[in-house]
Amino acid sequence: MLDKVNLKKRLKKREYETRYDELSIKLGSLQRAAKEAGIPVMVVFEGWRGAMRGTLINKLIESLDPRGFRVYSSSKTTAQQRRFPFFSFFWQHLPNKGGIAIHHRGWYFLKNEHEVGDSDEADEWYNISYEDINAFEKALTDDGYTVVKIFTHLSQKQQEENLKKIDKIYGKAWEDIAPGGVEGLNYKEYGKVYEKMFKKTDTVNAPWHIVSVEDLHTGLIAAFEIIIQALENALSQTKEKKTHKVVINKDLSVPDILGNYVLSDKIIDKKSYSEKLKEMQQRLSTMQFELFKKGIATIVGFEGWDAGGKGGAIKRFTGALDPLGYAVNPVAAPNALENSYNYLWRFWQHVPNSGEIAVFDRTWYGRVLVERVERFARVDEWRRAYQEINDMEAQWAKHGIVVQKFWMQIDKEEQYNRFEARENDPNKKWKITPDDWRNRDKWDAYVDAVNEMLYRTDTKAAPWTVVEANCKYYARLKVLETMIKRYEEVLKK
Amino acid sequence: MLDKVNLKKRLKKREYETRYDELSIKLGSLQRAAKEAGIPVMVVFEGWRGAMRGTLINKLIESLDPRGFRVYSSSKTTAQQRRFPFFSFFWQHLPNKGGIAIHHRGWYFLKNEHEVGDSDEADEWYNISYEDINAFEKALTDDGYTVVKIFTHLSQKQQEENLKKIDKIYGKAWEDIAPGGVEGLNYKEYGKVYEKMFKKTDTVNAPWHIVSVEDLHTGLIAAFEIIIQALENALSQTKEKKTHKVVINKDLSVPDILGNYVLSDKIIDKKSYSEKLKEMQQRLSTMQFELFKKGIATIVGFEGWDAGGKGGAIKRFTGALDPLGYAVNPVAAPNALENSYNYLWRFWQHVPNSGEIAVFDRTWYGRVLVERVERFARVDEWRRAYQEINDMEAQWAKHGIVVQKFWMQIDKEEQYNRFEARENDPNKKWKITPDDWRNRDKWDAYVDAVNEMLYRTDTKAAPWTVVEANCKYYARLKVLETMIKRYEEVLKK
Repeated sequence: MLDKVNLKKRLKKREYETRYDELSIKLGSLQRAAKEAGIPVMVVFEGWRGAMRGTLINKLIESLDPRGFRVYSSSKTTAQQRRFPFFSFFWQHLPNKGGIAIHHRGWYFLKNEHEVGDSDEADEWYNISYEDINAFEKALTDDGYTVVKIFTHLSQKQQEENLKKIDKIYGKAWEDIAPGGVEGLNYKEYGKVYEKMFKKTDTVNAPWHIVSVEDLHTGLIAAFEIIIQALENALSQTKEKKTHKVVINKDLSVPDILGNYVLSDKIIDKKSYSEKLKEMQQRLSTMQFELFKKGIATIVGFEGWDAGGKGGAIKRFTGALDPLGYAVNPVAAPNALENSYNYLWRFWQHVPNSGEIAVFDRTWYGRVLVERVERFARVDEWRRAYQEINDMEAQWAKHGIVVQKFWMQIDKEEQYNRFEARENDPNKKWKITPDDWRNRDKWDAYVDAVNEMLYRTDTKAAPWTVVEANCKYYARLKVLETMIKRYEEVLKK
Repeated sequence: MLDKVNLKKRLKKREYETRYDELSIKLGSLQRAAKEAGIPVMVVFEGWRGAMRGTLINKLIESLDPRGFRVYSSSKTTAQQRRFPFFSFFWQHLPNKGGIAIHHRGWYFLKNEHEVGDSDEADEWYNISYEDINAFEKALTDDGYTVVKIFTHLSQKQQEENLKKIDKIYGKAWEDIAPGGVEGLNYKEYGKVYEKMFKKTDTVNAPWHIVSVEDLHTGLIAAFEIIIQALENALSQTKEKKTHKVVINKDLSVPDILGNYVLSDKIIDKKSYSEKLKEMQQRLSTMQFELFKKGIATIVGFEGWDAGGKGGAIKRFTGALDPLGYAVNPVAAPNALENSYNYLWRFWQHVPNSGEIAVFDRTWYGRVLVERVERFARVDEWRRAYQEINDMEAQWAKHGIVVQKFWMQIDKEEQYNRFEARENDPNKKWKITPDDWRNRDKWDAYVDAVNEMLYRTDTKAAPWTVVEANCKYYARLKVLETMIKRYEEVLKK
């Protein structure tokens, strides 16, 4: 694609100044409109080294309200950042509704560096696939994010001239602190990598825009126009969407997975339970230490019926662990802040550091459970969530995180008994709320949702374990046993 | 204090078990009550090495709902953590209303390590004063936090036995990863440091509790009792407070500082402005680079009248900077999440990393401005805020951060003209809201609040600059000039 770009175009000074003033005002007012409409915007600048992106971004943001945007750079990738999955940084620093994130190179830089062979020691960390990139962008654009990708292009000759100029001003000083690779010496090689990138990631929802910065002023005006166009599109689509109806095929058949689980015979007596619990907890305690030494992190998600015994199982699991090495993240309905981001944002905030264990008491599956059943999410939203969740979990697993999910399965009668028991016990009464009774009325709708969830998201990278939980003792041991088995496999490697 | 502790007390197994069960249930129910009452709790465990704090904490938290607490360890202090002011970590990980933070050693460990001479290379970072510690704890307890400080005491003989046991189980493996100092070899020296710590930090609001862990079971029960007692006190105080009236001396006279500033002659024409602006921005641009190289961070806070020109001044300041090295933090009324913490919490979240610049568009001074005038804060709350803010800024400055504050001063007539001009300009109309007009009616109350703020918080560590801002050009240049001068002093050192 690069060879089709006209590098000779050059605005006259007068023309540039007039256009710049016009576009500045326009972009400022579009920023406010996007804020009002709640549109989150991500702009990523990728391109040749020496393309003066810094200067370009500086001129661009002059027209923006500084309270509404944030600039991030990937040349500052730290060791700390590389202890988390590749996309963590980008998820954690997502703009919220109405916010703008400008990425100086961003995820593409890291990938391209790896492709050319310029990435540093943490080699494999950089080696994400183009499919991962597309999945990341799609999850955002499907959710109403505007993703603008601008490639700053220039000739090899101009690149050399620019680099000489930069070196003269800064004496390579910035480079010492945040090395930008040696692509300046590798024009041909990088050219190939860029062409591959365009081929693989020029998608309908997040297309590439190539801007010639052979003349910086001309490039700046072009970048302005692209961003303005993207914001205008987003604003007009927001208006359309309000009247837009989503047609979804409802006849996707899903097997009755829950129906396969027999609960009645999964029983264990208190004495054997106590013995085995102690044994398993000791085993887990040692394992936690081994996992910590190897830097292997864990994400364990618990879902299940109300009164299904999530809390009790979590307590027995964490009871085996050193409290410095784990955290339990309770997940309730999203608050206003969380709601101003993509629904996955808040879970990325709690991805564990190397060697640590993150337990989720309820999870990101709320999207396809309560949000589906209660219609808090639109049909198209929860439908595409299966893929988005699989992608997220796959990225975690690829980074080496052990991902495990439990569904605590009890039957309707057992739930009734537990609700009643809670109501009658002054020490447990706090556990039961009118919501619990209301949810119970929607049992069948939940069964459908759970079956579809298990069907679509039980992956090798992040398997589901359905836990027969009518007997609490049996359930807790099954959870611990499952974790022990997974850890054994992981530690064997 | 340590020599008065009876190390021989020892519960019988039966007695221990009964008490443990009783206290477990009690603590669990108190945790729920504290959650409901919105009481945040911090428990810090300090004491001899080998005192089995890990085991003790593990047994304690068994009785807690894992969704309501978090355990932190200071033996894991990272290089990343030391790039921020000492208390950043503790502020950032404050429990919110109803939450419990358990600190395995916490701030005392770091201080004590330094006192004995065992702290590592980042020596000065550890060297906080006991006054800093007391100020930190007082800011929290005054705000309704319960701070429980437990010292785990044991004899030198028992310490040696425990260490041998620990080494046998873990083969010093945990120690390799998170070294705990060599205090085991230094019983006498540490004893002295601990006595000093008791003397300096055993305060009414956050007293020390010494617990003998010569026998771990006995120590555990004692720790339980202390925490339970603290929670019961907190709960009964919450009830009292509702009917409690605060008596405050209202006759604290404050000079009319704002009255000293003459605005009428602080004018500059557009041409000189443009020239000087360019010059100063270039100077700042170079300075940012030098500051970055030296790892010196900056916090700049902007306060001022509505339409006082904060936004414009910020834009001219940041316009000089590399966007990768600064962030502008807009400060609005706290949201629900922010309100569930101490009011300073959200500002600690944005303390800049070494070499970076954090700009605040409105600041923590909201406590003594809008919250005072609008009575969002009680009189005792905003009165003590002056000291709390001075303490916070002093800690930042001590860490080497350049702290600078601006008050944008215009007169009432100029404000009226600007409001009118905004109303009539379609490109600026968004800037003006009914709130602005309402605030204007309280001009005199704000003058009092601003005068008192300037009077009480203009410190050497964090000076105020009142900017005569009737002429925007003059104001912007004064802001830039002030920053340049401060940076010159800082860089000279």
